[in-house]
Amino acid sequence: MEVYLDNSATTKPNIEVVNIMTKALTDYYGNPSSLHHKGVEVEKLIKTARKQLAKALGASEQEIIFTSGGTESNNMAIMGAIESKKRKGNRIITTKIEHPSVLNVYKNLETKGYEVIYLDVDSFGKINMEQLKESISEETILISIMHVNNEVGTIQPVEEIGKIIKNNNENFIFHVDAIQSFGKIKFTPKKIGAHLLSVSGHKIHGPKGIGALYIKKGLKMTPLIYGGNQETGIRSGTENTPGILGLGEAARCLYEDMDNKINKMWILKNKLIEGIKNEIHDIKINGFEKEGSAPHIANISFLGIRGEVLLHSLEQDGIYVSTGSACSSKKNTKSHVLKAMGLKDYEIEGAIRFSFSYNNTLEEIDYAIDKLKKHVKDIRKIVKR
Amino acid sequence: MEVYLDNSATTKPNIEVVNIMTKALTDYYGNPSSLHHKGVEVEKLIKTARKQLAKALGASEQEIIFTSGGTESNNMAIMGAIESKKRKGNRIITTKIEHPSVLNVYKNLETKGYEVIYLDVDSFGKINMEQLKESISEETILISIMHVNNEVGTIQPVEEIGKIIKNNNENFIFHVDAIQSFGKIKFTPKKIGAHLLSVSGHKIHGPKGIGALYIKKGLKMTPLIYGGNQETGIRSGTENTPGILGLGEAARCLYEDMDNKINKMWILKNKLIEGIKNEIHDIKINGFEKEGSAPHIANISFLGIRGEVLLHSLEQDGIYVSTGSACSSKKNTKSHVLKAMGLKDYEIEGAIRFSFSYNNTLEEIDYAIDKLKKHVKDIRKIVKR
Repeated sequence: MEVYLDNSATTKPNIEVVNIMTKALTDYYGNPSSLHHKGVEVEKLIKTARKQLAKALGASEQEIIFTSGGTESNNMAIMGAIESKKRKGNRIITTKIEHPSVLNVYKNLETKGYEVIYLDVDSFGKINMEQLKESISEETILISIMHVNNEVGTIQPVEEIGKIIKNNNENFIFHVDAIQSFGKIKFTPKKIGAHLLSVSGHKIHGPKGIGALYIKKGLKMTPLIYGGNQETGIRSGTENTPGILGLGEAARCLYEDMDNKINKMWILKNKLIEGIKNEIHDIKINGFEKEGSAPHIANISFLGIRGEVLLHSLEQDGIYVSTGSACSSKKNTKSHVLKAMGLKDYEIEGAIRFSFSYNNTLEEIDYAIDKLKKHVKDIRKIVKR
Repeated sequence: MEVYLDNSATTKPNIEVVNIMTKALTDYYGNPSSLHHKGVEVEKLIKTARKQLAKALGASEQEIIFTSGGTESNNMAIMGAIESKKRKGNRIITTKIEHPSVLNVYKNLETKGYEVIYLDVDSFGKINMEQLKESISEETILISIMHVNNEVGTIQPVEEIGKIIKNNNENFIFHVDAIQSFGKIKFTPKKIGAHLLSVSGHKIHGPKGIGALYIKKGLKMTPLIYGGNQETGIRSGTENTPGILGLGEAARCLYEDMDNKINKMWILKNKLIEGIKNEIHDIKINGFEKEGSAPHIANISFLGIRGEVLLHSLEQDGIYVSTGSACSSKKNTKSHVLKAMGLKDYEIEGAIRFSFSYNNTLEEIDYAIDKLKKHVKDIRKIVKR
């Protein structure tokens, strides 16, 4: 049995996505900038994909810019926003638990004279709204907050932040990294009050190498990449037709029956957590279990065990999980997210992230609980000796 | 009959490329950063693709960085090179006939205090080596020259420039935009003496949305995009597995039998030019016909005719060509390349770019000449009335 529970790292593309991409590669290979039919037909298909994504985000198609992925979306959002506001001030507000594609942009900006405020999080991974309010100054140009944390699934109060932005006359730009929330929580950038919002293809059963940035109508942005002025000049480069059509199709699939998909992930997550609680002692659930959390992520510490050892034991039985995020898994550094949440070193060491898709089954969860129970027991025996 | 003669705008992916990409989408969907088997197997495949591309470029795999395409490769090369050299000086040397993905980066850099020297070209589109030598100053940090021009196919003397760089103790960085030369001319970055060299997937029967940058071993580069430190930290973002495997496979196909492929394109180009010369009067070949030119591009002005009108007439017969580059075709601006070559307005207006693939056939060329003859005659009749 193969049980893929690493859907926050990446998802398996839907068959509909694969089919439209294969079609794009074999039939719709024209350059959308070409004047002839082979270009024009592709341009139309890209328009349809943009509409599909816009619909899933409750946005207009003019507000969608395709990028090469979530990392580029985040980089473009931050760099593009501050370039256009740099005369106003130099303060940026973010959190300690952002993804590296946000944090490492800030590390670089700090060397260039920007002041970055990293908000603390509580033991569940949630920011404190008072601290956020106190951090806002005349110099503030950007607030960038992730919607759902990729390691523990905690949801940040982005709508509340959106209201603060509104009350401040939209004097600064609000960017939301929605890469882990898109398709897992119902929202729209408008409802949140975000000016910029990043999404990624491969986290929603779409392809890798494609993402998008929602840019609120009227917002002035500076490009990160210059060239032939594709994507209304904000993102140059020949359009990645297969990727764009794949993302559009993934968004369409997502939008269909979204409630049931979200509900299914909750059932899977609840079952796994209950099973682990009942069958395995000395565990710690990191982040919220239900309310305040996304339906697709459960982060659990198995105390006295090194997460990596458990991960490799599980993969022997065809179960695929993660110790932290995929991005930091190979660096052998302790999760900055769990650290910010105040976890002890031994709690961080034993942490495993289970992440679900609506394609997972209840049988898979039963199988995973069974194997987890066995491996945790075995490893603990060896460790004690 | 369908005759696609717009292969400089984009090419049709090889069936081998489509197959490996489909496989990547359905089977190898793991995140290469994941610690488990689903990640490890993908990491290996990416390594193989990197080797394939390195082999085709005569480089080592450590010198290959995957990007989202040729535009990003060019942006990354220029921005990354100048960031690391900015304390030394502010002069950049390039040509008037570069691609917008180079020229528009410089337009932006000029607003930031960089001095950009745009070298002239002669009536064939070739730079003057004396002007280049005279442009080099103590302040020079980067020379960025395109290998083959995308509109007229003229080859620049990049090896000679490489020698100048060497004679200057490699005091400045040499970037070559090889997007139109890769697979069309035999070269290696080492032979050229380039520090940085850009290539693109979709110009060599590979996929869109993927490209690569050759970075000479030891060269210090600043990233354009920050994040999870993929691609040794130079280019973050979850690896675009289908795109990377597709590019690797396209490079492998290219490398096989390259001489015959180049020869085939020469035969096609020569046949088209001879046919047009024999059958149609009042034409002008733009750029070199044979030596000094790439085998896949023929740019020809049909005097007294608007290129766009001829393009649309040809597409009625299933023949796809271009008026300029795909990137500038929709802007209704006159080709900056033909202008720099000193062409008169009416010569620029009548210009058509034919661009070949080794998959085109002699029958297709016969058909194209036949239809060209008919349409040029018809259009000229109407214009004269």
